[in-house]
Amino acid sequence: MDKNEFRLGRVRPAPENFLTDEDIQAVQAGRRDFLRKALLGASAAMLAPAAARAASDGDPAILNLPPWSTSLGMPVASHPYGLPSKYERGLVRRESPGLTRVGGSSVAFTPLQGLFGIITPSGLHFERHHQGWHDVDPSAHRLMINGLVKTNSVFTMDDIMRLPSVSRVHFIECGANTGMEWGNVAVPTVQYSHGMLSCSEFTGVPLKAILDMCGADYRKGRFILAEGADGSSMTRTIPMELVESGEVLVAYGMNGEMLRPENGYPLRLVVPGVQGVSWVKWLRRIEVGDKPWATKDEAVHYMDLLPDGQHRQYTSVQECKSVITTPSGGQILLDKGFYNISGMAWSGRGKVSRVDVSTDGGINWRPARLETPVLSKAVTRFNIDWVWDGKPAILQSRAADETGFVQPGYGQLRAARGTKSIYHNNAIQSWKVVESGEVSNVQVL
Amino acid sequence: MDKNEFRLGRVRPAPENFLTDEDIQAVQAGRRDFLRKALLGASAAMLAPAAARAASDGDPAILNLPPWSTSLGMPVASHPYGLPSKYERGLVRRESPGLTRVGGSSVAFTPLQGLFGIITPSGLHFERHHQGWHDVDPSAHRLMINGLVKTNSVFTMDDIMRLPSVSRVHFIECGANTGMEWGNVAVPTVQYSHGMLSCSEFTGVPLKAILDMCGADYRKGRFILAEGADGSSMTRTIPMELVESGEVLVAYGMNGEMLRPENGYPLRLVVPGVQGVSWVKWLRRIEVGDKPWATKDEAVHYMDLLPDGQHRQYTSVQECKSVITTPSGGQILLDKGFYNISGMAWSGRGKVSRVDVSTDGGINWRPARLETPVLSKAVTRFNIDWVWDGKPAILQSRAADETGFVQPGYGQLRAARGTKSIYHNNAIQSWKVVESGEVSNVQVL
Repeated sequence: MDKNEFRLGRVRPAPENFLTDEDIQAVQAGRRDFLRKALLGASAAMLAPAAARAASDGDPAILNLPPWSTSLGMPVASHPYGLPSKYERGLVRRESPGLTRVGGSSVAFTPLQGLFGIITPSGLHFERHHQGWHDVDPSAHRLMINGLVKTNSVFTMDDIMRLPSVSRVHFIECGANTGMEWGNVAVPTVQYSHGMLSCSEFTGVPLKAILDMCGADYRKGRFILAEGADGSSMTRTIPMELVESGEVLVAYGMNGEMLRPENGYPLRLVVPGVQGVSWVKWLRRIEVGDKPWATKDEAVHYMDLLPDGQHRQYTSVQECKSVITTPSGGQILLDKGFYNISGMAWSGRGKVSRVDVSTDGGINWRPARLETPVLSKAVTRFNIDWVWDGKPAILQSRAADETGFVQPGYGQLRAARGTKSIYHNNAIQSWKVVESGEVSNVQVL
Repeated sequence: MDKNEFRLGRVRPAPENFLTDEDIQAVQAGRRDFLRKALLGASAAMLAPAAARAASDGDPAILNLPPWSTSLGMPVASHPYGLPSKYERGLVRRESPGLTRVGGSSVAFTPLQGLFGIITPSGLHFERHHQGWHDVDPSAHRLMINGLVKTNSVFTMDDIMRLPSVSRVHFIECGANTGMEWGNVAVPTVQYSHGMLSCSEFTGVPLKAILDMCGADYRKGRFILAEGADGSSMTRTIPMELVESGEVLVAYGMNGEMLRPENGYPLRLVVPGVQGVSWVKWLRRIEVGDKPWATKDEAVHYMDLLPDGQHRQYTSVQECKSVITTPSGGQILLDKGFYNISGMAWSGRGKVSRVDVSTDGGINWRPARLETPVLSKAVTRFNIDWVWDGKPAILQSRAADETGFVQPGYGQLRAARGTKSIYHNNAIQSWKVVESGEVSNVQVL
């Protein structure tokens, strides 16, 4: 590697993260080396001639060392529960203004543009509520099992947390993620286009073990209903075959600690590969039954309108999908040169098997590196090198999973599904780079 | 499975987490069904006859439903960066009082007794500082590469974050973890005995790639020196062969977001398998050299005193080790019956290959279940069933790694290493359960 190859480029995160309005205006006005010069200036100041003089007499004040190198810092446990640096305060969940009339039935999106690896920090996990969130008292919370079971039962949190548990990394994606793009709205950043996606390590009890204890009738009882304790009594039907696979968890742990209140504390269902609405939060009841319940949230919402006017119901698996998170919409390439294109891929059917990346709008494709571990029904991080020549470019990623399914383009997806859907948009995302270095959301058929 | 088998037992977390002083006193006074009765009372209140009456007329107020089921909750993004439930406020990092004279050179331990799975929440990552922590300004931070390289170089954070990156899950353990146990101090909880251990997904650039760019002389340059920007100028020698393996990372990401300030923001070294002191925080310089530097923190501290008065130096790999986290010291078994014994195992040499658990002080051993994914130089979660008969018991775990190394007992470890060490204690931990259900730290030779 030639170091200068890497020196040429510089990418800035989406505007809401690092750049000030003045920075953006400077870049948009074409003064593309503004920041570079500012940084070089700062760098030169730090290496001022005084430093050279001081190097021989060892005086840290004259050396102009930063305060963190010359003073006693903060003690341990200053924050018994730690928080991010103040310099990262722009990296937060954001509500899309005006998306719903009540904040309790809205969405706060995960800032994918600033994340690394596959784990989503719990503080940045996306939120989608139907009647707001509460901090439920775990000592008062109960899980009831009823329906086609020998013994109707009520479990306390103590009962559940004493059972044999498992821990697994899985993605959760709202069925409506990327929903605005059906109508070609082209929301500005990946936070708003794909940010109803998170990936965590969940800990809990396989639902199968709990149903076994209650003597579930697996011959007749081919479906379960999961019900939440929130005001909307969120209810979803789930096929028993998913439960029998052992993958469905009654979960209390997320990323090593208890679930966060807005993600279902103290108990939620984990249904790997399936859209988020089925991962019922504040889980209070599981009923075993012989047919789907056709509740409001599966008979009115969360359906896919097809081109012929029919609709698909109970389409719940999140098909293979990917997105480039850096560079992405709202970011700015400040110079020509080397970039590490990075993104996320996932499939509700199993493991991601490959991700190809195009920088010319889908004419040429190159395979990206998949970071280990590549886990089933989890996010996989991909990376690939790119040298930007300063000319317009269109960046795309296309994932495939172990079943052989390949992520479709918008042309393919619309041929099958039309343009009137809200849910289950897994089309290839395109980011357009123009000569000024600005990156924006475009649709390529 | 028989549900009643599970109904019999109940474990409470360590006292500092959930139980009040009154709870503890009640349990210690032998009134072991105190809490059970209290909970049954609460449960009965919730299922009062009014509920039965209300079930037919559907009035939620009469049904006595909890407020979270009958009211609109909080809107999304109430916390743009989320926090744990208020009911979890006892689960925090804790300093061991009096361990050092200055909080800036002390330790805050991770509450392992309350964690699940393998990921440590970043807010609970252990802290060990030598001169306190600062929130370092990333725009002013620089990494210098010098010594046996063709081109001395200074990198900005922008430079580093633009390079090809990798993401990997690794444990980090302070070399002094479990150090108090050399002298048989028997600290009360697993937080204080083993809590200088955390495990995270780290993202960064392989140091090898950066040294390649600077033209490092790998023939002569068989060692590197890593230096931190904190007031202590923490410096450690690391063998070049670890760097050449590609495993050593110049990392900026932890669990999906930027490092936390107290864990080295914006840049730290990640040296998988090696004791935490070598994972230099606030990393500002890497020097390539032809021999170890014998700095203060490798010539005075972090050495192992042997029985013959000699000492071991540069012993930095954390050998295979494990600990049961539930039940563990300070917790209380409130009843006889079923328990899920859960714990963590790790090895600085590679993957954990098995964990055996004894409940009778090492006479009989049974293999525990290892949760997937089992990753190299990462924590592995293990679980195993246990039915407590109410009689005294001693709980132990013994891990082995893929090299064939088996975690030693205290007898074995002391025969080789004596009792005067501080560092690198990987002996089998024993938790004693007495008839009252109280769990305490004991040493078994």
